[in-house]
Amino acid sequence: MGILEKVNYPEDIKKLSLSELYVLSEEIREFLLYNIANTGGHLAANLGVVELTLALLYTFNPPHDKIVWDVGHQCYVYKILTGRKEKFSTLRKFGGLSGFPKSKESDYDSFDTGHSSTSISVALGFAIARDLNNKDYNVIAVIGDGALTGGLAYEGLNNAGRYNGKLLVILNDNEMSISKNVGAIAKYLSQVRTRPKYFKLKKMADRFVTNIPLIGERLYDLIRKLKGGLKYILFPGTLFEALGFEYYGPIDGHDIKKMCEVFENVKNITKPVLVHVVTQKGRGYEHAEKFPEKYHGVPPFDIETGNHLIDINSKSFSEVLGDKLCKLAKNNRKIVAITAAMPDGTGLSRFAQIYPERFFDVGIAEEHAVTFAAALAKEGLKPFVAIYSTFLQRAFDQIIHDVCIQNLNVVFCVDRAGLVGEDGETHHGSFDISYLTLIPNLTVIAPKDIKEFEMMLEFAAVYDRGPVAIRYPRGTAKVVGIYNPIMFGKAEILTQGKDLAVFAVGRHVSILYDIIRENNLDITLINVRFLKPLDIELIEAIVKTHKKILIVEDNTIVGGLGEKIKSIVAEKNSSNLIKHIGLPDRFVQHGTVGELYSLLGLDRKSLKNVIMELIKN
Amino acid sequence: MGILEKVNYPEDIKKLSLSELYVLSEEIREFLLYNIANTGGHLAANLGVVELTLALLYTFNPPHDKIVWDVGHQCYVYKILTGRKEKFSTLRKFGGLSGFPKSKESDYDSFDTGHSSTSISVALGFAIARDLNNKDYNVIAVIGDGALTGGLAYEGLNNAGRYNGKLLVILNDNEMSISKNVGAIAKYLSQVRTRPKYFKLKKMADRFVTNIPLIGERLYDLIRKLKGGLKYILFPGTLFEALGFEYYGPIDGHDIKKMCEVFENVKNITKPVLVHVVTQKGRGYEHAEKFPEKYHGVPPFDIETGNHLIDINSKSFSEVLGDKLCKLAKNNRKIVAITAAMPDGTGLSRFAQIYPERFFDVGIAEEHAVTFAAALAKEGLKPFVAIYSTFLQRAFDQIIHDVCIQNLNVVFCVDRAGLVGEDGETHHGSFDISYLTLIPNLTVIAPKDIKEFEMMLEFAAVYDRGPVAIRYPRGTAKVVGIYNPIMFGKAEILTQGKDLAVFAVGRHVSILYDIIRENNLDITLINVRFLKPLDIELIEAIVKTHKKILIVEDNTIVGGLGEKIKSIVAEKNSSNLIKHIGLPDRFVQHGTVGELYSLLGLDRKSLKNVIMELIKN
Repeated sequence: MGILEKVNYPEDIKKLSLSELYVLSEEIREFLLYNIANTGGHLAANLGVVELTLALLYTFNPPHDKIVWDVGHQCYVYKILTGRKEKFSTLRKFGGLSGFPKSKESDYDSFDTGHSSTSISVALGFAIARDLNNKDYNVIAVIGDGALTGGLAYEGLNNAGRYNGKLLVILNDNEMSISKNVGAIAKYLSQVRTRPKYFKLKKMADRFVTNIPLIGERLYDLIRKLKGGLKYILFPGTLFEALGFEYYGPIDGHDIKKMCEVFENVKNITKPVLVHVVTQKGRGYEHAEKFPEKYHGVPPFDIETGNHLIDINSKSFSEVLGDKLCKLAKNNRKIVAITAAMPDGTGLSRFAQIYPERFFDVGIAEEHAVTFAAALAKEGLKPFVAIYSTFLQRAFDQIIHDVCIQNLNVVFCVDRAGLVGEDGETHHGSFDISYLTLIPNLTVIAPKDIKEFEMMLEFAAVYDRGPVAIRYPRGTAKVVGIYNPIMFGKAEILTQGKDLAVFAVGRHVSILYDIIRENNLDITLINVRFLKPLDIELIEAIVKTHKKILIVEDNTIVGGLGEKIKSIVAEKNSSNLIKHIGLPDRFVQHGTVGELYSLLGLDRKSLKNVIMELIKN
Repeated sequence: MGILEKVNYPEDIKKLSLSELYVLSEEIREFLLYNIANTGGHLAANLGVVELTLALLYTFNPPHDKIVWDVGHQCYVYKILTGRKEKFSTLRKFGGLSGFPKSKESDYDSFDTGHSSTSISVALGFAIARDLNNKDYNVIAVIGDGALTGGLAYEGLNNAGRYNGKLLVILNDNEMSISKNVGAIAKYLSQVRTRPKYFKLKKMADRFVTNIPLIGERLYDLIRKLKGGLKYILFPGTLFEALGFEYYGPIDGHDIKKMCEVFENVKNITKPVLVHVVTQKGRGYEHAEKFPEKYHGVPPFDIETGNHLIDINSKSFSEVLGDKLCKLAKNNRKIVAITAAMPDGTGLSRFAQIYPERFFDVGIAEEHAVTFAAALAKEGLKPFVAIYSTFLQRAFDQIIHDVCIQNLNVVFCVDRAGLVGEDGETHHGSFDISYLTLIPNLTVIAPKDIKEFEMMLEFAAVYDRGPVAIRYPRGTAKVVGIYNPIMFGKAEILTQGKDLAVFAVGRHVSILYDIIRENNLDITLINVRFLKPLDIELIEAIVKTHKKILIVEDNTIVGGLGEKIKSIVAEKNSSNLIKHIGLPDRFVQHGTVGELYSLLGLDRKSLKNVIMELIKN
């Protein structure tokens, strides 16, 4: 680690020679690999942008110049080179560095990101603020071809394309979002990348010119040919030019010299410029080059073998979704599955293999995913839309406007509901109970464990009176072992007792069940199951028969289950002693789910203490 | 009305000659004008699509073929010609025809629309469902150039561009969304529309060929020229072709013959096709041709003069926003204003004229509007983002992810909160209290009348500890006349009494104040003002001192103010008699706001009855 040892800030990079930069890039790769093998994290994307980051820091001067990393999971190299190398071993750990840009962590992080496709809008805002504030700095958005499948990126391009000042967008084209990229843009970019070189055109034109006397009509022949397959020889950036950008590229994103030249040439152009850089995801680490989607986000792993070091004994909810949906689809030809760039994460990869014509990866396009599903449902199909809770926020209006107003039979598989852990505040599924239950016509349910999840998928597959959302956490939950049949709008009573009634949602049902059994407590435990419609009859009965009530949910306390149950208590003029534990009304930092549960009183130990306190009095 | 009298369904149109079609189109214009002058409605857009609708119905066979009207406000001609001519005088009236496509109203309406940019996603869903269901029909999305500024349209194009079946998108390009269109796409389309004709290219090429002997280098000169200004001669549809569509156009959208020819030619092409049709918004009605934005959505008007027939005595909230923001901006250079294609509707037109460099119409791009505002705020500016409540649903994730996580000083002016009236279920602002208060760091306030709205705008302009959302209704509210200073997190007590405590939000404060004064009631009336953070101290005190409580809000009862107050009551073990009146947990139909208030018990009379009943016992 000879050079990296001396490099802490962008100034240090500017002093290096080109050959030193290349040595540094290899040292950074080793450093990344060594650290991420321990901490886990977004490996492949960061291996791909080592040279790009070096070229950016060689040319520009953050924090004076503002670099906006779209999504932000590719900011590790940038963090290492902007004063955070020493802290890098704390990455994604509780109290440590975030895995995403955080302006409260460093001034070098110009804007917080985490969700996709925001960078062009942010960069335009920075550019216009610069003009209004009479300042002078460069603004650079770095956006992947994956993030370019999101509509917000296009809204940003459409607005930036008419702007008359310095604004640089770098398209980091690695042919991937998390999985292989999809959609027409991906095809377009691949045509641009693989277009024959300019000199081939010259040859062809020469042949025309020397062999055949050119008259008017012949010229049209030539033009017609150009219009067809060779369009992208003439106009590689046609798409971006139509959107008002000056286009440069494609250039090799591992050629530091070339990138520095181009960045230097374009940095003072007073109009929007897009530089198309081609990089390789996972570059320099054999396993990641081969299977970049497997190394997009990784737990700690063995560098030699590439094997993950975390053994997961029980099946995750996502895996259960994949397996169960394949089974259900076998007997029901109406079932189709939709993901927004997450076939692996949502567990749908096997479904995609078995039923390719009934599987749709729409790219990072949650809005389209939902509206598209609505139309499929309108024509009698049964779409299962699997999207993480935090990303489904993107489709809030489409759920209301396109699915629920028409009461269409779409099933939302809301993965990563509740806290997700190391990805932190931009990624927790903290809000879905609140934002889904407020929507008319939508049924919202949550399984206590993977077995009940299967039952709920069966229920949703045959339910034909409107949309259903099933919310479930990242990872798994301890299996409870008791399963009453799913009845529409009905909660499940797991234990009956006199000292306390506990209403719980999802994974916490399993945690609370254990506490009650292990301590032989005389408590009624209600697995709420239906967050909408609530089992009001049961709640009213419980309120009557139990003096003390505890409500536990891994959702914000605002607008969640607790407020609904308390409202019923108030309406009934009942004077129960009520304790409500949920996520606080603030954004929750990163750390393991266990650490965060402890912090917030949602872990087994805290819950046991609360219960003991409640039943004591 | 000779021909129109005999035309009721698409079959009738197919029997007509071309010249009869043109006569019919003029009859339809008269019919539209006559009816909308009485009912109010979306005049200009419908005058623009008369011929387009006729050509579609001449070529295609709905309801077998599926026509999806983007936004849907341009569906009047279609409704008239698909069995609903006789009912057309009930348009937008309570119990009458909807102003938007409604599949429960007619099978001819293939999919409900209302919000922008959904049609391509819907059409792709219909096309793929057709393939999976082994059916055969045509799918046609009709989308305006305005709707094309929305990111969802682009997500739809990106996904449809790789589809391998029959899918027709008609771009209805009238150079407008509601106001003059914005963004790079608009400029691109204008270049396509105004490109020199093909024969001009021929002339130029001929000159090259005949006058100058062409050698290799000269050819490059020519090519370079072509690459520049004349690009759109060769590739008018380059943008859409890059997105995988076959492009036809631009063609005259008032030339029925030409459109029928093109539709006939493309209707069996088994790949996505985009036909670019140029129409004139407001066509055939002088006043609307001149000022199409004034005749986008109109109240009843005088046909001769074009004057609106409704006299509004009091200033609307939107007008107050415009005036007040101009005043505030004069002394605070940090204030900027953002609208998503609604400079008139949100009242910001004057601001746009006075401060053009501080005003941003981003097109129908609510997501970009919010993320862009976040970046402006990050750099110290004070953005006021004015978006209707129902459309702000589109930016739900951006409010959370880009504004609230970083606690940035963005002000959201949430117009059309609560019921909006005639536009109906797709447009009511029924959910904002619920979906905004669940977000950490966001302050949510609501003024009781326009004077208090001014005070709240002043408050928000100087508040620098995070984002603020101000929600206010369409139209106006009767002025109350009592104004305590705005204090962060504090409610306002307007009357004090012993018989009942009433908590009210926004316009209903004014209605309830009148009821109390006019009937000399001994009631405490609380203007909640801060929906977040709630004035918990005051609520707890009121709960203690008042046995009976009434809560009134024009927001869904789920996750709104009522649940929050009731939760406090339950936590305090208080046994108040509580009545909660809000919007029901279902989608509310169209009608005047007054009719809908009566229907839902939110009108003055119903509220008085409730109060009398409550204080009687």
